[in-house]
Amino acid sequence: MPLRLHAPVILPCDPECSVLRDAVLDIGEDGRITHVGPGADAPEHHGPSKRLTGILMPGLVNAHAHSPMTLLRGLGGDLPLMRWLTEVIWPTEARLTPDDVYAGMVLGSLEMLKAGVTTSAEMYFYGEEVVRAVLDTGARLVLGPAIIDAPGWNWAEQLANTSNWIDNDGLRFGPGDRIEIGYGPHSAYTLSPDALGQVGAAARERGALVQIHVAESLPEDVAQREKYGSVPVLLDQVGLFGGRVLAAHAVHLSDGDIETLRRYEVGVAHCPGSNTKLASGIARLADLRAAGVAVGVGTDGPASNDDLDLWEDVRLAGLLARVSTMDSTVVGAADLLLMATRGGAAALSRTDIGVLEPGAWADLVHVGVDDPAFAGGLDIGDGHLLSNLVWAAGARTVEDVWVAGERVVAGGVVTTVDEGGALVAARGAVGRLI
Amino acid sequence: MPLRLHAPVILPCDPECSVLRDAVLDIGEDGRITHVGPGADAPEHHGPSKRLTGILMPGLVNAHAHSPMTLLRGLGGDLPLMRWLTEVIWPTEARLTPDDVYAGMVLGSLEMLKAGVTTSAEMYFYGEEVVRAVLDTGARLVLGPAIIDAPGWNWAEQLANTSNWIDNDGLRFGPGDRIEIGYGPHSAYTLSPDALGQVGAAARERGALVQIHVAESLPEDVAQREKYGSVPVLLDQVGLFGGRVLAAHAVHLSDGDIETLRRYEVGVAHCPGSNTKLASGIARLADLRAAGVAVGVGTDGPASNDDLDLWEDVRLAGLLARVSTMDSTVVGAADLLLMATRGGAAALSRTDIGVLEPGAWADLVHVGVDDPAFAGGLDIGDGHLLSNLVWAAGARTVEDVWVAGERVVAGGVVTTVDEGGALVAARGAVGRLI
Repeated sequence: MPLRLHAPVILPCDPECSVLRDAVLDIGEDGRITHVGPGADAPEHHGPSKRLTGILMPGLVNAHAHSPMTLLRGLGGDLPLMRWLTEVIWPTEARLTPDDVYAGMVLGSLEMLKAGVTTSAEMYFYGEEVVRAVLDTGARLVLGPAIIDAPGWNWAEQLANTSNWIDNDGLRFGPGDRIEIGYGPHSAYTLSPDALGQVGAAARERGALVQIHVAESLPEDVAQREKYGSVPVLLDQVGLFGGRVLAAHAVHLSDGDIETLRRYEVGVAHCPGSNTKLASGIARLADLRAAGVAVGVGTDGPASNDDLDLWEDVRLAGLLARVSTMDSTVVGAADLLLMATRGGAAALSRTDIGVLEPGAWADLVHVGVDDPAFAGGLDIGDGHLLSNLVWAAGARTVEDVWVAGERVVAGGVVTTVDEGGALVAARGAVGRLI
Repeated sequence: MPLRLHAPVILPCDPECSVLRDAVLDIGEDGRITHVGPGADAPEHHGPSKRLTGILMPGLVNAHAHSPMTLLRGLGGDLPLMRWLTEVIWPTEARLTPDDVYAGMVLGSLEMLKAGVTTSAEMYFYGEEVVRAVLDTGARLVLGPAIIDAPGWNWAEQLANTSNWIDNDGLRFGPGDRIEIGYGPHSAYTLSPDALGQVGAAARERGALVQIHVAESLPEDVAQREKYGSVPVLLDQVGLFGGRVLAAHAVHLSDGDIETLRRYEVGVAHCPGSNTKLASGIARLADLRAAGVAVGVGTDGPASNDDLDLWEDVRLAGLLARVSTMDSTVVGAADLLLMATRGGAAALSRTDIGVLEPGAWADLVHVGVDDPAFAGGLDIGDGHLLSNLVWAAGARTVEDVWVAGERVVAGGVVTTVDEGGALVAARGAVGRLI
């Protein structure tokens, strides 16, 4: 930093999904973008510069994850949901140490960086370890430390701890403001209405993001509808809405529920991989988008999905929206690209990521095009190119990644932590756990 | 050849989906497997041997593709189906030269080999070029040269050409019998009942496979049901069934249609990526499997899917089956692995591929496990390992590939053709076409 990047194609991910040809992007001292546009109109530049050969675009935003669960990946994977949770996942999670959570998060974070995912919204426990891992890998994190009312957990203490954390360190901290702390109330079925209301009030007071699971599975939805009308109705009544809220999953929604989310500007983390694998259902993506709800895409935890390749979930979001409406035009490549970037940012109520524009963080991905996915190269129509990028390329074509202007992946290899060492550490943890 | 391979894990893809630990596989002079089993019980061996560090398994079988369409990948991708076909795809295909088809097939074939797909069932025109391309890349091909009744095409001539080809060269030829020729009648809506009957008779006479699109889109299905009852009813009436038949897509099936497919032992190529992207519908995978129909997985052509990564389609098959039945136990990792290998072979009525057993071709894939997908390494339970392989690993972890005992991918790089040159040739063709 500062650095000028030239690229034959830059996708700023503005609302029009523009395709800039022969363009430049300037990164300032502080790791923010200072300029992006066609090379011909670029301001004078005297610092270092670099010429890329592929497509430069914003880093993807994974809008919902529990990434330390890399350690639990594939464990008991084909059991029915409740047996899987109660017999395998929860007992194993109860044995996780802080060091395990660190090892699992490092592995998940480097897997995401290599796939071009620069930001992830995480809900997990041992939050300090999650933060430490992301500071080490150099990714960007929006953390909701888990708040849950279950045996062995004290929701009131968890709520107080998060509030104290924000009051002490601020909402955002770390180099390039890499870390944002918010609240992670697990769900409406694991917390009382009173607890949910208290979390909402604490978050609003601090301008903090609330991440919460909403109407994920059908049995959950049926139970809540009987009791309260619906999960969004309940969350509205208890006062959780009104501030920055991210509803993860949001599968089982009535038209009225969608209207409630729209009215309170609640963002949605659509998790198609998890929702199909666990047979939770297909979220109403086309309806949410038509209503103007901010929708991003999440992988969910790797114990259920099972990888952190957000490109695959983005494609799946498009496929499910098309087949569930029987309309192949309902979501196109440009829509999907924007959902994966600025849509994810909007769902987290952030405007400083997921887009390439002056003032935004230089969270960047360079996609290489020496791949059969780009059978026609770059000298093809804009829509054709976006189709190749979204529907055919993806994680394997990610070559370089920057976060807040810092290069964290070079030529497909993570520069900040030793990938082999991270895998060895994870395997040690798995060996002790299973 | 001959060669002994040692591997910490061998997945023979037998009906039980066994996981062999510390095992060996022997390849004979002719490129067929002579032995597979635990290392402790292995016969004496004096020739060359090689110690692998990952998982050895059969090459995947792509049960339905039009791979030369790599050249049309992403073209007009977000248009509605009929406009996409009539305004973009068909006019562009009409301009394809034999050299273009060769270039497109080479690119598609190397893309598949790198993903561990050793066999593909192809339906396309300029069949000699498709064969030439696959002989050059060293993959395995089951070709149905297209037969279609459309302006500029002569179905009777196409039928006669295919019969002559088989009568001259035999059903299978090439090193390691890499090439199989069958019949590719396009569909029941592009050929008359009489033509379909003649194709069926010619194929049965020669023991050749018939590849045909069946009940793919809803408008097609509605029209055929009104006219004939259903596509399978029609194909039964005209005498297309009775020999080796592969029904591609088979989305819109009644219970009676499934029973018809079962009775005639028709194989199904399930194409979930294409069927969702084009909003054709969700095939009844769980019902087909329950009925005992042989089901493989196909990518369909890369103009509609858009890549040839069969692993992604295999996962999608599982996800769709689970969410469409709202039952997360209906298809597991082992089921999916077997569908991608022996299931695909069975759908093509082949028993010499898709499985590791004496007498089968040594079409092999070595999956590397130095990847976050295998967070727990290999020293984990069998089901856990299969979950990691199917749900989290996939194409990017494929390191080495053999076809009929010949190494065609080494360390992720194709050894038979120059990948860069193939991409340059494809780009030249695309540049002339669009």
